[in-house]
Amino acid sequence: MKQITGGATAAKGFQAACTAAGIKYENRTDMAMLYSQVPCRVAGTFTTNLVKAAPVLWDRDIVKNSEYAQAVVVNAGIANACTGQEGLDYCQKTADQAAKVLGIPASAVCVASTGVIGKQLPIDRIMAGVEALAPKLADGVEAGNAAAKAIMTTDTHEKEVAVEFEVGGKTVTIGGMCKGSGMIHPNMCTMLAFVTTDLAISKELLQEALSANVKDTFNMISVDGDTSTNDTLLLMANGLAGNPEITEKGADYDAFCEALNFVNTTLAKMMAGDGEGATALFEVTVVNAETKEQAQVLAKSVICSSLTKAAIFGHDANWGRILCAMGYSGATFDPDKVDLYFESKGGKIKLIENGVALDYSEEEATKILSEPEVTAIADLKLGEAQGTAWGCDLSYDYVKINADYRS
Amino acid sequence: MKQITGGATAAKGFQAACTAAGIKYENRTDMAMLYSQVPCRVAGTFTTNLVKAAPVLWDRDIVKNSEYAQAVVVNAGIANACTGQEGLDYCQKTADQAAKVLGIPASAVCVASTGVIGKQLPIDRIMAGVEALAPKLADGVEAGNAAAKAIMTTDTHEKEVAVEFEVGGKTVTIGGMCKGSGMIHPNMCTMLAFVTTDLAISKELLQEALSANVKDTFNMISVDGDTSTNDTLLLMANGLAGNPEITEKGADYDAFCEALNFVNTTLAKMMAGDGEGATALFEVTVVNAETKEQAQVLAKSVICSSLTKAAIFGHDANWGRILCAMGYSGATFDPDKVDLYFESKGGKIKLIENGVALDYSEEEATKILSEPEVTAIADLKLGEAQGTAWGCDLSYDYVKINADYRS
Repeated sequence: MKQITGGATAAKGFQAACTAAGIKYENRTDMAMLYSQVPCRVAGTFTTNLVKAAPVLWDRDIVKNSEYAQAVVVNAGIANACTGQEGLDYCQKTADQAAKVLGIPASAVCVASTGVIGKQLPIDRIMAGVEALAPKLADGVEAGNAAAKAIMTTDTHEKEVAVEFEVGGKTVTIGGMCKGSGMIHPNMCTMLAFVTTDLAISKELLQEALSANVKDTFNMISVDGDTSTNDTLLLMANGLAGNPEITEKGADYDAFCEALNFVNTTLAKMMAGDGEGATALFEVTVVNAETKEQAQVLAKSVICSSLTKAAIFGHDANWGRILCAMGYSGATFDPDKVDLYFESKGGKIKLIENGVALDYSEEEATKILSEPEVTAIADLKLGEAQGTAWGCDLSYDYVKINADYRS
Repeated sequence: MKQITGGATAAKGFQAACTAAGIKYENRTDMAMLYSQVPCRVAGTFTTNLVKAAPVLWDRDIVKNSEYAQAVVVNAGIANACTGQEGLDYCQKTADQAAKVLGIPASAVCVASTGVIGKQLPIDRIMAGVEALAPKLADGVEAGNAAAKAIMTTDTHEKEVAVEFEVGGKTVTIGGMCKGSGMIHPNMCTMLAFVTTDLAISKELLQEALSANVKDTFNMISVDGDTSTNDTLLLMANGLAGNPEITEKGADYDAFCEALNFVNTTLAKMMAGDGEGATALFEVTVVNAETKEQAQVLAKSVICSSLTKAAIFGHDANWGRILCAMGYSGATFDPDKVDLYFESKGGKIKLIENGVALDYSEEEATKILSEPEVTAIADLKLGEAQGTAWGCDLSYDYVKINADYRS
């Protein structure tokens, strides 16, 4: 497996375009289209929020019932959530319009929206946007990058990754793009992420690989504990790599899962590190746990703790808050056995041993915590499993961004 | 039932004292003692955090195994949590010292600590503090108020309440004090709260009343979602009111429960409204639910949402975040039936009907949200049950307070 430049257009046959449709923002692109020159197998995972945005209902139906998908239309600025029948009608209209200009069935067009909840989409601008997008579709790194920029809301930078790997003597490419960066506490999926590959694989295995993988990647990040109404992760595979179709588990499937895991982990970490107001990516790894689930529950509880996040922002080695967050996680462990470390490019330091503080240097701890990527490692000394979660610090800017997001 | 001035010393026979022991803070009192002139029945609820501070273990043992309690020694500044055997030994030493100076058994002395996790108590100062406290014990409102001030950490004001009610022709008094104001997400109890009454009641009914009541009061508040290692709620009843002892449920027990509910609700709301950095008390009431549990789960999910809290800070009627938080709460309801209102001293406004936005005035909504106490009311239209939760907004000061709490 080899990382290459690019994102959602890295795999063969995938094209992208973007346009400034004037949905909410001024002077920036805010609509994107992703298109495959041939029909794709499509898998997806969606928000578990009981309040599901209209595009989530639309895409879920396509993933479940359509034979294939071939395009995705995305807008930033308005989420099309809590919009009733009108919101659902707008999904249909958007897909119909894309179907018309692309010459494909509406049942092959996924839609995705992100932004303010409760406002109706300016459907005339969306329709004009779709019409503007189709002729702009282009291959290559630049088109993918521009699309990754167009789907951002409070993100500070675009998020893309791509890798190549081998299946049956053929080079297969998988890449993707995603956006955050608030209301991020994915549960079975994440805000908006689109992963594309030219792999040939059965629909069943494509979905199985994705569903298994999100548990370790997108579901292990949190910015603010708020599971969005719009979380959508789509994985499209168009088969253009020319490999013999993967129809059963084995070495080829494993190679795909490894590449998928790299892509999803990278995108998820980018999203966590670019959380609203974040100054640092905060990684928590729990090692020597009895089970992976136990390790993941503990790690996720720590990255969700407001107090711990504020301490990370302050470069303060307030490890008591980490033990506290592990304690209320719901997972069992023995607090009197726990060792805890902080690690970053600034070094590694052991803070507690068997649940009690060591006589560590606060100065060194602060230096380690002043890096833009910080890891806490909790050693449970109970078994051999481990789990990792990713979050970010809690800063003044998180409050600023969200105190008056709508205006 | 009638509200009166005072707090933990309002009921007959209860005395309090405070002193500046120099545990962590300078130029302020930081230790308090609560004492009953006669032995008390004692009930308690404690943190469900797996990581339990030493004083929690000590008090839990007393509530379970001691025939009676007669004093509580409290310190602010250091939590005596994650302190191993040394921390447990310090509870014993503190209780032994109090027992000696008060002439009561150590098994009648509860201890409570709040502050930084992981530091050992300066036990010599604690011992000197206990010695200084005993001769200062005094009846009356002033002594109770001074004690309520001494147990504060990041609280901006002391928290007290007291009421009188009648049982068997006798006037019974119940009052209490508590402190917050970060790491507040009580689960079966709260940070530190001490409620005293001169009621005569069996130990079993005292505990039963308390355990039932915390579910509707202290367990329904949250400042930051972090369940502390030190949460302790003690309820002491010394029988000096002279009523016939309550030994079974009936009108007298109900009158007590009503008074207890008023005291605990008032203290809990004070704690929520004085949450770290808070500029507003944020109340959420869910009405016309199928069950009380459903209403409480939904209400609590909303007051815990960082995004909603930031919007309240910004006086922004971002109701989509409220519906979103209800949606990920885990409770079921029909989003398409929900009506939502904001209410405060500034007025009442209906924002959404049947899950979709009305054409309301943003200006009026902002006016209503600019009050120091704001209520959101969600009408599920499913049944007749209701539930309320209390939280606060998320401000810059929450981040400021917690980015470098230890220094």
